[in-house]
Amino acid sequence: MNATLLRSAFYIAAICGIYLAAAMFVPAMADLYYANDDWQVFAICGFMVGGTSLVTAVAMRGNPPPFSRRLGFFLVNLLWITFALVGSIPIYLAREDLTFAQALFEAVSAITTTGSTVLTGLDDSAPGLLLWRSLLQWMGGIGIVALGLFILPFLRIGGMAFFKMESSDTSDKPFARMASFTRAFLAIYVGITIACAVAYDLAGMSHFDAVNHALTTVATGGFSTHDASFGYFDSPALLLISSFFMMLCSLPFSILILFVVRGRLDTLRDPQIMLFLSYLAMATFVLALYISLDGQMDFVNALIQSYFNVSSILSTTGYASTDYTQWGAFAIVLVFFLMFMGGCSGSTAGGIKAYRFLILYNMLSTGMKKLIYPNAVYSIRYGRLSVDSETQRAVSMFFSAFILLWAFGSIAMAAFGYDLITAISSVLTALSNVGPGLGDIIGPAGNFATFADPELYLLSVLMLLGRLEILTVAVILMPMYWRG
Amino acid sequence: MNATLLRSAFYIAAICGIYLAAAMFVPAMADLYYANDDWQVFAICGFMVGGTSLVTAVAMRGNPPPFSRRLGFFLVNLLWITFALVGSIPIYLAREDLTFAQALFEAVSAITTTGSTVLTGLDDSAPGLLLWRSLLQWMGGIGIVALGLFILPFLRIGGMAFFKMESSDTSDKPFARMASFTRAFLAIYVGITIACAVAYDLAGMSHFDAVNHALTTVATGGFSTHDASFGYFDSPALLLISSFFMMLCSLPFSILILFVVRGRLDTLRDPQIMLFLSYLAMATFVLALYISLDGQMDFVNALIQSYFNVSSILSTTGYASTDYTQWGAFAIVLVFFLMFMGGCSGSTAGGIKAYRFLILYNMLSTGMKKLIYPNAVYSIRYGRLSVDSETQRAVSMFFSAFILLWAFGSIAMAAFGYDLITAISSVLTALSNVGPGLGDIIGPAGNFATFADPELYLLSVLMLLGRLEILTVAVILMPMYWRG
Repeated sequence: MNATLLRSAFYIAAICGIYLAAAMFVPAMADLYYANDDWQVFAICGFMVGGTSLVTAVAMRGNPPPFSRRLGFFLVNLLWITFALVGSIPIYLAREDLTFAQALFEAVSAITTTGSTVLTGLDDSAPGLLLWRSLLQWMGGIGIVALGLFILPFLRIGGMAFFKMESSDTSDKPFARMASFTRAFLAIYVGITIACAVAYDLAGMSHFDAVNHALTTVATGGFSTHDASFGYFDSPALLLISSFFMMLCSLPFSILILFVVRGRLDTLRDPQIMLFLSYLAMATFVLALYISLDGQMDFVNALIQSYFNVSSILSTTGYASTDYTQWGAFAIVLVFFLMFMGGCSGSTAGGIKAYRFLILYNMLSTGMKKLIYPNAVYSIRYGRLSVDSETQRAVSMFFSAFILLWAFGSIAMAAFGYDLITAISSVLTALSNVGPGLGDIIGPAGNFATFADPELYLLSVLMLLGRLEILTVAVILMPMYWRG
Repeated sequence: MNATLLRSAFYIAAICGIYLAAAMFVPAMADLYYANDDWQVFAICGFMVGGTSLVTAVAMRGNPPPFSRRLGFFLVNLLWITFALVGSIPIYLAREDLTFAQALFEAVSAITTTGSTVLTGLDDSAPGLLLWRSLLQWMGGIGIVALGLFILPFLRIGGMAFFKMESSDTSDKPFARMASFTRAFLAIYVGITIACAVAYDLAGMSHFDAVNHALTTVATGGFSTHDASFGYFDSPALLLISSFFMMLCSLPFSILILFVVRGRLDTLRDPQIMLFLSYLAMATFVLALYISLDGQMDFVNALIQSYFNVSSILSTTGYASTDYTQWGAFAIVLVFFLMFMGGCSGSTAGGIKAYRFLILYNMLSTGMKKLIYPNAVYSIRYGRLSVDSETQRAVSMFFSAFILLWAFGSIAMAAFGYDLITAISSVLTALSNVGPGLGDIIGPAGNFATFADPELYLLSVLMLLGRLEILTVAVILMPMYWRG
């Protein structure tokens, strides 16, 4: 690493800090409107962060170095860490009962769009704080889509390079294209958020709840303004609206962008979308069948409940309409494995993701064909495309890294004294950015408030690792990265 | 598949059936000696199976076709299924309280050297039946080493081809070498078994117990003659002896063979041995520290208990000296993840195995270096050797297949009504061929007797899949295999 790279990275982080400071005035105004004293916390933080960022930006400005992968890795890590640290400040100041680790956990959970929370008594919380959590999550959603669409393919992380084609397409002016794509993406993201908020509002949420839940639905984040999450509303219409938007935001944004920019819908045939929608439909149906056959509710009700909670887990949102772990052993085991899966590339959803399962499956089936006919030449397919060996390797690497990290993380959580179900599900929900775990402590009816600081730091790191596709973080931990 | 291949495969299976029939007279003699009427069951089965096999062998004899991979896949599956079916007959006949699924499960658990049992009241069982279980397991051990050393590398399954070098070495007469290797292996296998039995006997076991436990220790199988497994003996000396032999038999037999055939010990530097011994030592130490700090026993005792039970799980033997799940949450989570790991290639141990973790780790770390320097050329190392891309792909394939199969199997077990811990640990213990699972039902203090027939069939299939490195079985389930 040289000084120019560092300077340049801090410059970009400082610019982002200015935006983040500006965002702090939104909760400040909310608190002012609802006559809550916390507005001062957000206003002061806004001025302080904004001022610091401005000074840093001025101090660090200069000619930007050519964008290199080395800068990219550093920048991505720096940005997420900055957002987490800055985002945690008003939470720490507004809630005097929290330790710093708890405030940081809440902020990391927000910007990684995970949705695990250490806060209890949300229903009586100050509106500014609730809105700040939702806003952080919404901005985290923007960050992760931008990362998935534009940066990870360039960094060659996790097989995302394979999806460069989606945006490289026909034009021969990459930066002009990127700018128009970014504008289109932001327009769509804001548009979907507004549509979601209006739908929630019309279906019976208060204006404040509608805005907050729209922000965290579109980010597939899952923070709620009520301890009972969507269980508070007890409205099938809201569950269906939310399920639809969670599902929509688990699809690749590139497809919506292409539709808006060029009026094309042909990429909807993307195999990962078919796979994602298939396992969503199958899990919904099987779970609904199970709970209705078990006599817990009639089939239509079961279908709505199942659709909502399965969408919530697969989109890695993390809302709950009820404590689904009370539905029985089958529901728990199904939910456990759904937590690994996730949505599509280039969306706000986390997890291992549909396209990786598709490529892994095709690697397996092609590998078996090669066992029968070793001299035949087979290519690994992704729809009508052939998957290059670098992408194959990247997908395998991500899968192994995910499983190994899950194992080591779980052993660490057990060393802190937690039982098997809590240990393996807390690490999994962090890595996949889902939100709730399983078991009495962190299940959909519980929360992360009883975890002590060391556990919260560990899970914060795991959320960041999961959100940044693991290797982006792991690379900058290698001594080799810093040499030369 | 053509008729010649099928005929030839059935001929080889029939020859093996003759050996299996001959083995049935051993428990028959034991029952006769201990004046138990069951001797008739074994004698009659021996004559019937021997006669049928002889007739089949005569009917199927003829010029062997050249050994092809297609024949190899079919033969391996056929042999293990034949052994399981034939092995289950005397169990079914000797224990009238068992369903056929239970008897088959017991036989599959034996020949796959898993060691899960549906039998209770072992302490009062007929000696012939106990000896038959142990013998089946011992023969399963021979089968699996032969498979790993000679057949899987040829079939290119799971990256085993990488270890062809161990036996291809210097000689240029492959079959002469294979015959001398087989003789050396059998001599070593029998030799270690005798040494183990003598040691057990001298340390206080009855002759009968010593023989039975030696047979199942060397096979890293884990069937015991007592419901309390090694807890029955309450002897630190026996625990240490057993731990040593379990550890020894998790090492590649090729190394012992090379030592005996050529007097060479240089392959002891094999990296997978170092890795296996490291994680064995580390897990032993950490677990001993945990239970002694927890005040459950003094450190020396804790070390012995920990060494025994960790060796038992890592070697996939499955003995227990006590219900280690009572040691607390950390012990349970550690054991859970140790159950994935297993021993070395070319041993009787199951699981994912040390060399695969080593190759995966090197693929990950090399992959990260390539993220920093994309144009540099790095080779994936295994000690001083370079791992070819076919082996890398095979290792990744096995790892993904193992995890996916574990997920699907666990969901199926949950559909049968079992809780998360029972579901995920029953499938894992079957795939890894360990033996006991976790939780109240199938933990080290429980057994598989309460599982109904469908679960037992499912787990039997999973034990076979795990033992035959998954893809060997999966290949013959593809329609493509049977065409042309």
